[in-house]
Amino acid sequence: MKYKVGCVLLPSLLSFCASFSSPNNINKNSIKPPTPTFLNHKKRPIQKVVVVGGTHGNEYTGVWCIKALSRHAAKISSQYPSLTIETLLANPEAHYENKRFIHSDLNREFSQDKLLGEEGLPLTVERLRAQEVNELLGPKFGENHPSTDVIVDLHTTTTNMGICLIVPEGDVEMIKAAAYVSHKVCGGVNEGECRILVHSILDRNERPNLGSIARHGFTVEVGPVPQGVLRHDAVEKTEKVIHYFLEYLEKQNKNEQNINTLLEEWYPEGQLTIFKAAKACEEGQLCGRIRWPSDPENPNFPQFLVHKSLQDRDFHKIQKGDALFVDLDGNVINYSGSHGEEVYLIFVNEGGYYYSSSGTGLGVAVKRKIGIEDGMIRRYYEKKSITP
Amino acid sequence: MKYKVGCVLLPSLLSFCASFSSPNNINKNSIKPPTPTFLNHKKRPIQKVVVVGGTHGNEYTGVWCIKALSRHAAKISSQYPSLTIETLLANPEAHYENKRFIHSDLNREFSQDKLLGEEGLPLTVERLRAQEVNELLGPKFGENHPSTDVIVDLHTTTTNMGICLIVPEGDVEMIKAAAYVSHKVCGGVNEGECRILVHSILDRNERPNLGSIARHGFTVEVGPVPQGVLRHDAVEKTEKVIHYFLEYLEKQNKNEQNINTLLEEWYPEGQLTIFKAAKACEEGQLCGRIRWPSDPENPNFPQFLVHKSLQDRDFHKIQKGDALFVDLDGNVINYSGSHGEEVYLIFVNEGGYYYSSSGTGLGVAVKRKIGIEDGMIRRYYEKKSITP
Repeated sequence: MKYKVGCVLLPSLLSFCASFSSPNNINKNSIKPPTPTFLNHKKRPIQKVVVVGGTHGNEYTGVWCIKALSRHAAKISSQYPSLTIETLLANPEAHYENKRFIHSDLNREFSQDKLLGEEGLPLTVERLRAQEVNELLGPKFGENHPSTDVIVDLHTTTTNMGICLIVPEGDVEMIKAAAYVSHKVCGGVNEGECRILVHSILDRNERPNLGSIARHGFTVEVGPVPQGVLRHDAVEKTEKVIHYFLEYLEKQNKNEQNINTLLEEWYPEGQLTIFKAAKACEEGQLCGRIRWPSDPENPNFPQFLVHKSLQDRDFHKIQKGDALFVDLDGNVINYSGSHGEEVYLIFVNEGGYYYSSSGTGLGVAVKRKIGIEDGMIRRYYEKKSITP
Repeated sequence: MKYKVGCVLLPSLLSFCASFSSPNNINKNSIKPPTPTFLNHKKRPIQKVVVVGGTHGNEYTGVWCIKALSRHAAKISSQYPSLTIETLLANPEAHYENKRFIHSDLNREFSQDKLLGEEGLPLTVERLRAQEVNELLGPKFGENHPSTDVIVDLHTTTTNMGICLIVPEGDVEMIKAAAYVSHKVCGGVNEGECRILVHSILDRNERPNLGSIARHGFTVEVGPVPQGVLRHDAVEKTEKVIHYFLEYLEKQNKNEQNINTLLEEWYPEGQLTIFKAAKACEEGQLCGRIRWPSDPENPNFPQFLVHKSLQDRDFHKIQKGDALFVDLDGNVINYSGSHGEEVYLIFVNEGGYYYSSSGTGLGVAVKRKIGIEDGMIRRYYEKKSITP
């Protein structure tokens, strides 16, 4: 599949990056994107929603929120009568251990080869759990539609990302939902602390995250929250997002035209500001990540500190030459321009990215516009920023 | 030993609390405190210093600092010529697992029964490691002096504690060092974010923490830092404390009188403001901790959130009736006055206190004065605040 040639994908929390590409093949990509799988299901209404917590076992906020939802099932059900809402603790074993995962990141276990148990792959705790979850909420592959219409996957980050909604490019329903939620939570994406990140993997079958087993996936990230800790403010933010997301679905089920009118009013240009992974401009660099090296004796301990000038400054724009890291001798390592002259840092010093198996480093993104009606990123921005 | 009657000690990070007591027995305690063990060694100079990181495996800052110290051994050695400085990674197994501990909190494993391997106690990873560390840096018990004069134990906390220096009551050397460091770092304890907490267990043999195996123990806590994450600013703060601590020892070894003159100038009243664990006023409550209940299915997941009005407000004074917690139904739980009408909260929402085996809850302290010359807390404050 041409679209993926040269892509170095990270087995990490966020796989919102589709491809490594040189400036030469950008045009080709933007002309013929692969048809998103979810379009096959376009006409079915959204009814069954599963709210998932603890995909990463030490992200406690989601676990708290699904416990609270379960306790108030009757009230929730009467609030959103067109929906069937369920909850799931995704990785109970890792949660009880207060670890991100036991053997491997559950949020990367939903690819075809892993789910269908291709020979030669070891059966880890997370691989087995992924198969169970796929049976419960999917199936992702095969002739049957997934039993779940939307998975809302609740995460936290140790970084100062505020509220982030992560949705797949091309999934008009989820992009409209993100537009609705961000407006309700923060009065629009350009104000406040609610931002939208977009996965560029259009084909749902190609995405390895938990949300990909349902027809639609909607991931919520709230930060800063330490791993293994609950913060009241982060719980409240997450609950607010869940509420407005369900409210959107309810309104959409009742009267789609009303919702469209509302969105047109809120976003008169028909576009949303979003962030997407910055493609690497240098060979050997990863898409969406500026790596730091790991300690030779401990693959999960970094050899660099994130420079203090960047700490807590997620969505801050950096330029070639700006300080990025500090090593054990106090030397400062500057930005080489590996992902473009000017990029936005995201997930700045995320605890989950300390695992070398998850791809260490700083998240790096570009700012784009996405069409609310077609759910597609406006590619002409890309040409401008990367091609001289 | 009368002093310990009724005390419910917490197997946790901080054991700076000596006793559960009713107002009636405070006087007795303050009249006849047990003689601190370290006084036996009073005349020996301080030469061998061991800087310890990773006593809690997921507190990465200390691990970074000891790596950096080791890389610059020659420079450090010439800076502090009267000292022999070594470093130790205390719990490597937990560190490689990015966990606080594997089986039990290493910082509670240095009691006599555990170190001397009393029958009936299981040999956990941490119990075995404690015995090794005791051989390396102690011995704590027996006829020989410990081989180490001071252990500097580097910790971090997920809470907004700033820089905290934890020293034992009665250890004049460490209290003078804390006075020196806090003045150098923050211009005195009442300004800035450097505060001093005092263990009230006078007898070193009775303290179970790692620092207790050397003649003197000096614990550094810096926060907020998430577990399993390094922050450049926290590393710099910790390094500053290490530097000024070593500078104090160097100056003290060279000319004690000069240091005393300096401290008299900085603290003309001869006293330091410190915090110590608030004793429980209600039967069944723990000394120094207002507990939250744990989830029936997961002993390390709380049933209460810390109320948002307290989050990040360490050293904030609360009164009876103030909001403390929120439960899954949104009910607010107020402060019952369990530790006095007015108390200071410390370690507010500490990740290490989520483990029910460590004693869950909010830290609670009282503000006191301590004499720099005798290292003893001025007890008359205690009578005033607790007895009506």
